[in-house]
Amino acid sequence: MYNMATMKINVDELLWLALKEDITSEDLTTNAIMREDKLGEAQLICKQDGIIAGLQVFERVFHLLDENTKVTFQCKDGDFVKNGTLLATVTGDIRTILTGERVALNYLQRMSGIATHTRKLVDLLGDGKTKLLDTRKTTPNMRIFEKYAVKVGGGTNHRYNLSDGILIKDNHIGAAGSIQKAVEMAKEYAPFVRKIEVEVESLEQVQEALDAGADIIMLDNMDNDTMKQAVQLIAGRAETECSGNVTAERVQAILETGVDYVSCGALTHSSPIMDVSLKNLHSI
Amino acid sequence: MYNMATMKINVDELLWLALKEDITSEDLTTNAIMREDKLGEAQLICKQDGIIAGLQVFERVFHLLDENTKVTFQCKDGDFVKNGTLLATVTGDIRTILTGERVALNYLQRMSGIATHTRKLVDLLGDGKTKLLDTRKTTPNMRIFEKYAVKVGGGTNHRYNLSDGILIKDNHIGAAGSIQKAVEMAKEYAPFVRKIEVEVESLEQVQEALDAGADIIMLDNMDNDTMKQAVQLIAGRAETECSGNVTAERVQAILETGVDYVSCGALTHSSPIMDVSLKNLHSI
Amino acid sequence: MYNMATMKINVDELLWLALKEDITSEDLTTNAIMREDKLGEAQLICKQDGIIAGLQVFERVFHLLDENTKVTFQCKDGDFVKNGTLLATVTGDIRTILTGERVALNYLQRMSGIATHTRKLVDLLGDGKTKLLDTRKTTPNMRIFEKYAVKVGGGTNHRYNLSDGILIKDNHIGAAGSIQKAVEMAKEYAPFVRKIEVEVESLEQVQEALDAGADIIMLDNMDNDTMKQAVQLIAGRAETECSGNVTAERVQAILETGVDYVSCGALTHSSPIMDVSLKNLHSI
Amino acid sequence: MYNMATMKINVDELLWLALKEDITSEDLTTNAIMREDKLGEAQLICKQDGIIAGLQVFERVFHLLDENTKVTFQCKDGDFVKNGTLLATVTGDIRTILTGERVALNYLQRMSGIATHTRKLVDLLGDGKTKLLDTRKTTPNMRIFEKYAVKVGGGTNHRYNLSDGILIKDNHIGAAGSIQKAVEMAKEYAPFVRKIEVEVESLEQVQEALDAGADIIMLDNMDNDTMKQAVQLIAGRAETECSGNVTAERVQAILETGVDYVSCGALTHSSPIMDVSLKNLHSI
Amino acid sequence: MYNMATMKINVDELLWLALKEDITSEDLTTNAIMREDKLGEAQLICKQDGIIAGLQVFERVFHLLDENTKVTFQCKDGDFVKNGTLLATVTGDIRTILTGERVALNYLQRMSGIATHTRKLVDLLGDGKTKLLDTRKTTPNMRIFEKYAVKVGGGTNHRYNLSDGILIKDNHIGAAGSIQKAVEMAKEYAPFVRKIEVEVESLEQVQEALDAGADIIMLDNMDNDTMKQAVQLIAGRAETECSGNVTAERVQAILETGVDYVSCGALTHSSPIMDVSLKNLHSI
Amino acid sequence: MYNMATMKINVDELLWLALKEDITSEDLTTNAIMREDKLGEAQLICKQDGIIAGLQVFERVFHLLDENTKVTFQCKDGDFVKNGTLLATVTGDIRTILTGERVALNYLQRMSGIATHTRKLVDLLGDGKTKLLDTRKTTPNMRIFEKYAVKVGGGTNHRYNLSDGILIKDNHIGAAGSIQKAVEMAKEYAPFVRKIEVEVESLEQVQEALDAGADIIMLDNMDNDTMKQAVQLIAGRAETECSGNVTAERVQAILETGVDYVSCGALTHSSPIMDVSLKNLHSI
Repeated sequence: MYNMATMKINVDELLWLALKEDITSEDLTTNAIMREDKLGEAQLICKQDGIIAGLQVFERVFHLLDENTKVTFQCKDGDFVKNGTLLATVTGDIRTILTGERVALNYLQRMSGIATHTRKLVDLLGDGKTKLLDTRKTTPNMRIFEKYAVKVGGGTNHRYNLSDGILIKDNHIGAAGSIQKAVEMAKEYAPFVRKIEVEVESLEQVQEALDAGADIIMLDNMDNDTMKQAVQLIAGRAETECSGNVTAERVQAILETGVDYVSCGALTHSSPIMDVSLKNLHSI
Repeated sequence: MYNMATMKINVDELLWLALKEDITSEDLTTNAIMREDKLGEAQLICKQDGIIAGLQVFERVFHLLDENTKVTFQCKDGDFVKNGTLLATVTGDIRTILTGERVALNYLQRMSGIATHTRKLVDLLGDGKTKLLDTRKTTPNMRIFEKYAVKVGGGTNHRYNLSDGILIKDNHIGAAGSIQKAVEMAKEYAPFVRKIEVEVESLEQVQEALDAGADIIMLDNMDNDTMKQAVQLIAGRAETECSGNVTAERVQAILETGVDYVSCGALTHSSPIMDVSLKNLHSI
Repeated sequence: MYNMATMKINVDELLWLALKEDITSEDLTTNAIMREDKLGEAQLICKQDGIIAGLQVFERVFHLLDENTKVTFQCKDGDFVKNGTLLATVTGDIRTILTGERVALNYLQRMSGIATHTRKLVDLLGDGKTKLLDTRKTTPNMRIFEKYAVKVGGGTNHRYNLSDGILIKDNHIGAAGSIQKAVEMAKEYAPFVRKIEVEVESLEQVQEALDAGADIIMLDNMDNDTMKQAVQLIAGRAETECSGNVTAERVQAILETGVDYVSCGALTHSSPIMDVSLKNLHSI
Repeated sequence: MYNMATMKINVDELLWLALKEDITSEDLTTNAIMREDKLGEAQLICKQDGIIAGLQVFERVFHLLDENTKVTFQCKDGDFVKNGTLLATVTGDIRTILTGERVALNYLQRMSGIATHTRKLVDLLGDGKTKLLDTRKTTPNMRIFEKYAVKVGGGTNHRYNLSDGILIKDNHIGAAGSIQKAVEMAKEYAPFVRKIEVEVESLEQVQEALDAGADIIMLDNMDNDTMKQAVQLIAGRAETECSGNVTAERVQAILETGVDYVSCGALTHSSPIMDVSLKNLHSI
Repeated sequence: MYNMATMKINVDELLWLALKEDITSEDLTTNAIMREDKLGEAQLICKQDGIIAGLQVFERVFHLLDENTKVTFQCKDGDFVKNGTLLATVTGDIRTILTGERVALNYLQRMSGIATHTRKLVDLLGDGKTKLLDTRKTTPNMRIFEKYAVKVGGGTNHRYNLSDGILIKDNHIGAAGSIQKAVEMAKEYAPFVRKIEVEVESLEQVQEALDAGADIIMLDNMDNDTMKQAVQLIAGRAETECSGNVTAERVQAILETGVDYVSCGALTHSSPIMDVSLKNLHSI
Repeated sequence: MYNMATMKINVDELLWLALKEDITSEDLTTNAIMREDKLGEAQLICKQDGIIAGLQVFERVFHLLDENTKVTFQCKDGDFVKNGTLLATVTGDIRTILTGERVALNYLQRMSGIATHTRKLVDLLGDGKTKLLDTRKTTPNMRIFEKYAVKVGGGTNHRYNLSDGILIKDNHIGAAGSIQKAVEMAKEYAPFVRKIEVEVESLEQVQEALDAGADIIMLDNMDNDTMKQAVQLIAGRAETECSGNVTAERVQAILETGVDYVSCGALTHSSPIMDVSLKNLHSI
């Protein structure tokens, strides 16, 4: 899903850094024992049911080390895969496979874990209009991978970072003097392609944000009833986002408020990995 | 616990990268609304019980942005802190606090999550001689933070990466011809300060590894009985590591095998974060 | 106007690169002749009427070289300054001033040139609702400086880059099959905080874009009459952008179309510099 | 004209930086709508008469993104090309072409603008011995491209930067005590392959510089008569450079002074771009 | 001996830096005179007897500049080569060969000088069990090359750096309070795969280090007799390292002490280069 | 002698790289044993007679790690210092001193070794007009340090790199067709501040180079008699450089030829280090 331009411009640098983190001088064990090239093959096997995500990143790690490594995929990002499934075959110099294995798997496992977690919540939300959003609570230097994994899992991305979205919080409102004034300053300052989002905590603030012309209103820590009233008050004049932990138990209640989006930091900060393993490496 | 030299040589670069990930041009909202310096203060509050880890990293993010930001700690790494506790006070330009908040918290939450998870397992292992190890299954570009967090939680670090430890696996053994030969080649090639670890799957291999002079023998996916026999066979002539998922249920059985170390990838790849929050930002 | 966080995260790296471009080993002449620190002072003098922009960048170059260099400003970004005016005084080690002078001025002159050019067009557009936009036609590795200078000159920024704005052009429409389909795909894929802009060339396309729910419609190379009809057809249901060279002659006609924005690449790609000079360096 | 070694050692890094400036995460619009590779072709068309410069840089941007992109040139750097001319055909994955287009054109347009401006002045100077020089007044992080463009336009490069040329100015002279002393110190300190240039403002200083053994004497802001006398006084014992704005009106007078070189900062700091466009992108 | 993964992860960056050091804008002479590709061939000739080391690094420099450059080797790392021998033939664009020649040779000559020096000392030590170690006294940013060259020359590597080995010196002992305490703290803190080395200066300290469970004991500046007694006292319970200058004269005495290792900083800090030259470049 | 601007622009990056080379995660031993700041002091002691060079680099390493480290010098670069002399006192956090010690000394020892070697040859050349030159045969990524050390030792720098000097060799002459043509092309292409040097091997070539207007003529591998004739033929119309090993034995003969410069690669590629040591570290 990433195309090669994205990979080269914004991903490769991080992959190299991760490889340098794991190999500060050389892969000692492999270089000690395997002095020559030897063609080998290994199988990428799923060890847990889930949504696979990050296959191109997995492949790219090996391609950076040796462009002759070949990865033949049996699935694609977003597929639901089951424990025991063969996901791909990796063919190339055995030393390259041994040296790159851990880094490649570390990315794939984490990205798949996030996609799997996201899919579960998306399924809970069902076919209604409420969509699941990620947040900026990502692992440092993993955002491009984690936001992509959310998308693979069926989620929708919130702003990428502080530079590409306006989100006016209480401190900003306080500094500006009022929601009205803050929205005005933001509209004047920001690129005109930005939507203006305002975080509000009461129905009064909802009305102020509407009057100020906010494009999106984030309903922060409201109880279900208040949120419902807020959505009715807004009546489609702005998009609405429910911020706060979405849990299986609360999903139904959230859906009933009619909110457009619900955001969930746990997607990226607390998903356990999906277990994936490179097996049966043998020379061919 | 990190000293400043470590910070400057190996941490700052990653922090800058994480800041650039979150701010590709500028913090639009803050710059739009707050045009001038304004001194402010915020409180770092614990939202969940656990072991805090990464306080210096949290502080460093703000210091990189503005060396005049002051963080006054009420606790130190490794402390068990409870939901609601005030952990620290951050004082400085409000804009700096707003701009750095997310990155600083993303590190602190993840590191504390790992320390908390580690401490739970360490407590389960109790006072016996079996120690808990981490693995190389870390989040890419987070290893220095995650391995440190394991240590804060009471765990012991395994090798840092492929360059600073020898771990001979089945593919290496196959390539060398025998465990004996593989250990020999490793000893000859590697810096003499390296211990040689060999991964084995049977009692026969345990014996071979012993004969070859392995310093550490990793007992891979052995059932509890075989592991016990292996430990008895080794009889202190090499250190022993149990590799495989350590779960609460299995802890007692592992302890009874008498193995020296048990390694656990989940510490770094699947710990949920510990919730920590920056609250009550106000001008002073 | 840039705050220090922006400077440190996204500007310093470019300033260092520019300094390395100008000093690949050392400032030979200065090091040959001036072996010791010597406190000196120089005056930043305006040599041409215009809008000054980039004073903090000018200052930052000297601060990077020596944090003890002091720049005392007599004006601020956005001020209209006249030939002969004293803009600032620079005090510090004479060698630092000599070594950094050219790089500091190269930034300041270019940014001020752009701000001056922008202000002229903004003044021509007058108090009406039509606003002046910049484009992505910036000098490579100068965008953060050039977009800021446009803002200083009174212009409005269009999207910062390909990652933070959606602009659907004919090739995208062709690939998607229709404007309707392209807008749908973009809404599904992009972070939900993005506005969707569509470039159209005919009134039929304007209608299609409206039906598809475009947030912004770019009227590309339309004659004044067609543009006027387009604006009337849109009737405020989307924002409108006139793309194409805005010249003094055409301004009145554009204003009469009632378009919301007019974009102009020349602001950043063809503004001549504003002449600014560092004079009267003397020891003190 | 750049060979590949220059490109790889000193150009690629800047091109990557420019690509990252324009794509901080991904090309959102293209990735949203075009999910698969699709072979396409586009035409590079000249929109203005002028001297083309930077074709290899234009090509390199696409090659960095995808080495399979093919650029077939119909002209070469230094050619005078006319509005409407087909300059090149670009063939490759349509997404790569869309993603790289703006950066590639931003370089090409600026470099061609400089070459065109330079050629105009070179033509004015005619066949006489007086040559046109550039200066260090280049756009930050664009020097390697801009100095090359000057050469393509028929100009001659002055020193590349502060490290590869000696230019003694009034502050250096003041610090050394005399021109004699400054030249001596420079000769002693600098690599022996450097020519020593001295900036002078009067005939007395010309004589001093000659006596000191200056290789080049820069006649700074002299009127035409004084410059003529200076050239006669020097009588070929040093090279001479006229520093100051060269304008069409003043060219004849400058030529009559017999000065060897005339330097012009506007070549690199104030040339408008030459309009070049990528057109007719279609799948093939 | 380096495989390609090592090269790409940890060597290429240093080679690019060295190339940028030698070519800050372009290879002026070559670009001035040779405007077109021209296939050529040159011979790598040995100008001095010695051990060749670094052939892959030599080749890599040319491959980075142009992957079509072909280097055909007549020898391999570790071979003893004699003055006048043809070591390799380099075929490719003459400009690439001229541009890369100096950097490629600077690496090869230094690495071969170190390998040659090492081999001489290794030969002096003979077939006994005492092995020759390098130190951290390497040339900055050359460690990966210099430690490899030591290995090629038959030496053994000591720890790579401060992060991958524990070496407790007097200051550490002082800070800890005793050798016992220092070893304990190190064992608790360091990854469990680290051997613990302690530097001692007296027989009392030897005993303390033994009692503390040191894996390696460094006998620092002991006279031959004391060292002999130390080795006898240790009796194989720890490995022993003699630290201090090993000279031809002292070798026999050191061997007689029975020490396991002797370390020598001069291998990497004071080996003269081995003269190797690129000759007979001609077009083909 | 380096000023701070040089340090920050072109030296710091290399020092950080060297520190990262030595500390890929942390200084394990020091961090294991010393958990707290502790003020200490150490003495920089000379262990060998020679010329000290690189004191600012030595100091800078500690300042990068901790700006509060204080180095008090008892000598300055270029001083002849004797075995046993106290060169400086270093005061600061003991951990910083331990962590930075090796890198700081590795630079200082190598630079002083080169300065010492250079001074010896400069003294042999005596007061005559023949000056000693270095070459581009420097250790990769050490050029800025090594060329500076040569200057400290009394030598003169040749060109810094391929970009800042023209040196026409036989391959260039062959490609151009003649010396005349090659010099012409170089003059036309290169910045006009470059001197043109031509390498010649016979008196015929000397004459050709003179006729072509070469600024410097390098007499390559000529015997003393031919060189003498060459110098007489040139008669001051160009500067002359004798290329080839200068040895103590040959110095007198070289002086008698009257050549202006003699270049010596061994200064930078084969100087043994000067032994300098950090001693008596103790807390204060």
